[in-house]
Amino acid sequence: MKRYERLADDIAGLIRNGILAPGEKIPSVRHASQTYGVSPSTVFQAYYLLEDRGLIQARARSGYFVRALAGLPLPEPQPSPAAHETTDVDVSELVFSVLGSLKNPHTVPFGSAFPSPDLYPLARLARSMAHSLRTLAPHDIIADMTAGNPDLMRQIALRYMVGGVRLPMEELVITNGALEALNLSLQSVTQAGDLVAIESPAFYACLQVLERLQLKAVEIPVHPRDGVDLNVLRDRLRSLPIKACWFMSSFQNPVGSSLSELRKLELYGLLREHQVPLIEDDVYAELYFGERPPRPIKSLDDDGLVMHCGSFSKSLAPGYRVGWVAGGRFAERIARLKLMTTISPSVPAQTAIADYLQHGSYDRHLRKLRYTLERQQDAMLASAARHFPQGTRVTRPSGGYFLWFEFPEQVDSLQLFKLALAQGISLAPGPIFSASQGFRHCARLNHGHPWSTDSEQAMELLGRMLRSF
Amino acid sequence: MKRYERLADDIAGLIRNGILAPGEKIPSVRHASQTYGVSPSTVFQAYYLLEDRGLIQARARSGYFVRALAGLPLPEPQPSPAAHETTDVDVSELVFSVLGSLKNPHTVPFGSAFPSPDLYPLARLARSMAHSLRTLAPHDIIADMTAGNPDLMRQIALRYMVGGVRLPMEELVITNGALEALNLSLQSVTQAGDLVAIESPAFYACLQVLERLQLKAVEIPVHPRDGVDLNVLRDRLRSLPIKACWFMSSFQNPVGSSLSELRKLELYGLLREHQVPLIEDDVYAELYFGERPPRPIKSLDDDGLVMHCGSFSKSLAPGYRVGWVAGGRFAERIARLKLMTTISPSVPAQTAIADYLQHGSYDRHLRKLRYTLERQQDAMLASAARHFPQGTRVTRPSGGYFLWFEFPEQVDSLQLFKLALAQGISLAPGPIFSASQGFRHCARLNHGHPWSTDSEQAMELLGRMLRSF
Repeated sequence: MKRYERLADDIAGLIRNGILAPGEKIPSVRHASQTYGVSPSTVFQAYYLLEDRGLIQARARSGYFVRALAGLPLPEPQPSPAAHETTDVDVSELVFSVLGSLKNPHTVPFGSAFPSPDLYPLARLARSMAHSLRTLAPHDIIADMTAGNPDLMRQIALRYMVGGVRLPMEELVITNGALEALNLSLQSVTQAGDLVAIESPAFYACLQVLERLQLKAVEIPVHPRDGVDLNVLRDRLRSLPIKACWFMSSFQNPVGSSLSELRKLELYGLLREHQVPLIEDDVYAELYFGERPPRPIKSLDDDGLVMHCGSFSKSLAPGYRVGWVAGGRFAERIARLKLMTTISPSVPAQTAIADYLQHGSYDRHLRKLRYTLERQQDAMLASAARHFPQGTRVTRPSGGYFLWFEFPEQVDSLQLFKLALAQGISLAPGPIFSASQGFRHCARLNHGHPWSTDSEQAMELLGRMLRSF
Repeated sequence: MKRYERLADDIAGLIRNGILAPGEKIPSVRHASQTYGVSPSTVFQAYYLLEDRGLIQARARSGYFVRALAGLPLPEPQPSPAAHETTDVDVSELVFSVLGSLKNPHTVPFGSAFPSPDLYPLARLARSMAHSLRTLAPHDIIADMTAGNPDLMRQIALRYMVGGVRLPMEELVITNGALEALNLSLQSVTQAGDLVAIESPAFYACLQVLERLQLKAVEIPVHPRDGVDLNVLRDRLRSLPIKACWFMSSFQNPVGSSLSELRKLELYGLLREHQVPLIEDDVYAELYFGERPPRPIKSLDDDGLVMHCGSFSKSLAPGYRVGWVAGGRFAERIARLKLMTTISPSVPAQTAIADYLQHGSYDRHLRKLRYTLERQQDAMLASAARHFPQGTRVTRPSGGYFLWFEFPEQVDSLQLFKLALAQGISLAPGPIFSASQGFRHCARLNHGHPWSTDSEQAMELLGRMLRSF
């Protein structure tokens, strides 16, 4: 971290803690320069950064002031209500109409599923690609296609080991992104008509996959901070022939919740007791803001019940489409399903990532990425507090790049979605995250793009629309 | 083509036509050098090449002689018998045990599904990869993921146009190889329990996909030269509620047959009459040995009924996993299924191929590849005629890299498969190509690898095993 970034962080902390109150003038550049023992230009850079993040603003000839946060920060949303016991899923049309809206590159991408590609070391990856293709023996192209690139598999197994999970290489199946890993994992343990426990709200692709495979959803409410409701899950596991669970243990999409280690233990105990396999969607694992990475439920799995799905799409290489599953006792079945559907992810994409993991600086890149995403979360939270109406609630995930907003009851987020899109702003309305199309007054907003005056204006505009309901 | 290659071809022609008979001495180097007006070293190179191809052999101090072809070339197999009306498919276990045997790189790869990777311009493709990644804007990575890389789509549409098919860009869906295209196409028009007309024998992955999706096979016999039996198909379309056909119109895998243009017209007429969609698997389209490319059935499709599936895996870029489908009226449904299963093929793999198609020399590469595959077919046919027992029949496809052998009735190809594997030779036994596990005395052999003394010895060994039945 650069010196001015550290300084900006210190001052942001003072603002968040209320030591510097909204409307208050912050120290002059000269004063700050003396206090902190840094050059005036460092102070200027720090102040520009804070201005970018929406925390302070300049007033002509008066210096910098803390921006009004519209009173206190926004409160946390309510835990989601318990749904019907089982639900037929029919959400695809709605999801596609939302996804279709994201194609326009001039839209403010609050509805996007991806962070800004500018946050990734694409040029360095391209060098890894060139290097790895120079050294790839032609025969390996055929060999890697069936089993996966062995260097990549070793690197992934190594990262598991560092994270405290001992993983036999045979458990790893390299896939076309995490979505294929999730699809194949689910197919390996279910048949049409089966029941699958999922979160409510859930990642919309999970709903689409259930729909496509004609599986029935058993929706388990998600607490905005603590994750899936284990009491409801316990009941459902006792009363229904659930064939699999599909949960995100950390930085759940869309609400951002994470299960504590204790609750992970409890959840795993339930699964083991009922011998129900878990598909653990852990694609945001590397995007934690805390000191240490969250431990996956896979780390507790001594029975091969957990299919742990990961990906490089959000942490390193968007568009390369390389993910994996550590498939437990289902690994061979998953590998065979893959051979029948896509055979293999692109071999050059695999070798490029393997080369980067060996010779690049993945951990340094990740530290920078986490820092950026956390700062952008700050900016969006502060901006929402300024512009969104009273009664709005919002999550504060400790990782990832989504915020989940609960607006006042009368807000219709599908209506809001249309209004906003007409003004060049996308967002992900609540109903696309629910088999029963609930969460009508909720929305997921993406803060994975650099915060700018456009973002700030878009938030202000959204605030006005919200008030119009 | 080099001068010595042309000379070798001329002499090979004389051998094939019987002008130079088995056992006959061919002209001395000095004599040939004078006759053809080339240098002695060119003649030597040509003779070495003919020796490699198994057409001539050197005898110490006597010069070169035409090898014995064991009498006449082998005759063509019989058309396959008509099967039961519908068949439940359960072939996966068998297929996986065969595929598993191919992992050993020291095996003579007659059972492989791929040609030698040495036949592809991998270094040139790597340069295209580097070039395209240098010029790719980060935002395009996200954009290309959903729709497909636009340059690649334009290049593919252009090749269709040159081949006489006018294709709106909206029909194209870029996929993870042809296998995903075939899978998604089939899913877009069927539900569990539906009937699908397939060839008998058929590409084994087709059988696996039917099995996975719980579809029933209606097996249509394939004539070894003319392709699928249209009379049987007509009957079945009239008597059964067939939901889709999945056929290879050119160089069918495994038998290598191609439908004539007249028969393509007739087939398309049937489909149109019954409004049954066709999944046209055309992955060997570019590997024709004749003067002109075969026209796909897609070229006749004025009703959007044909989903034409292609790939670069066999023509340009093995392991890159880039294929496509021109999906007719089902294109949007296929695109959505893709978004739900793998989202997108690797973007770098797409841009690399797009760059190669624009700046590389695809057509020159293809000419060389076709020439090589045809010569290797010659070598395998000649070798089979020398070593395989009387009563063996074999196809003579006008493209691709497979020969389909029909051995004498008493041969059990699953047994042969095991015997051969123990000697380090792989092959693809008949029953993996059939839902009803017929074709027990048949096998598919791959000639996509450079012909060598190892290949020749392997054929000789197979011949001995065949005689042991």
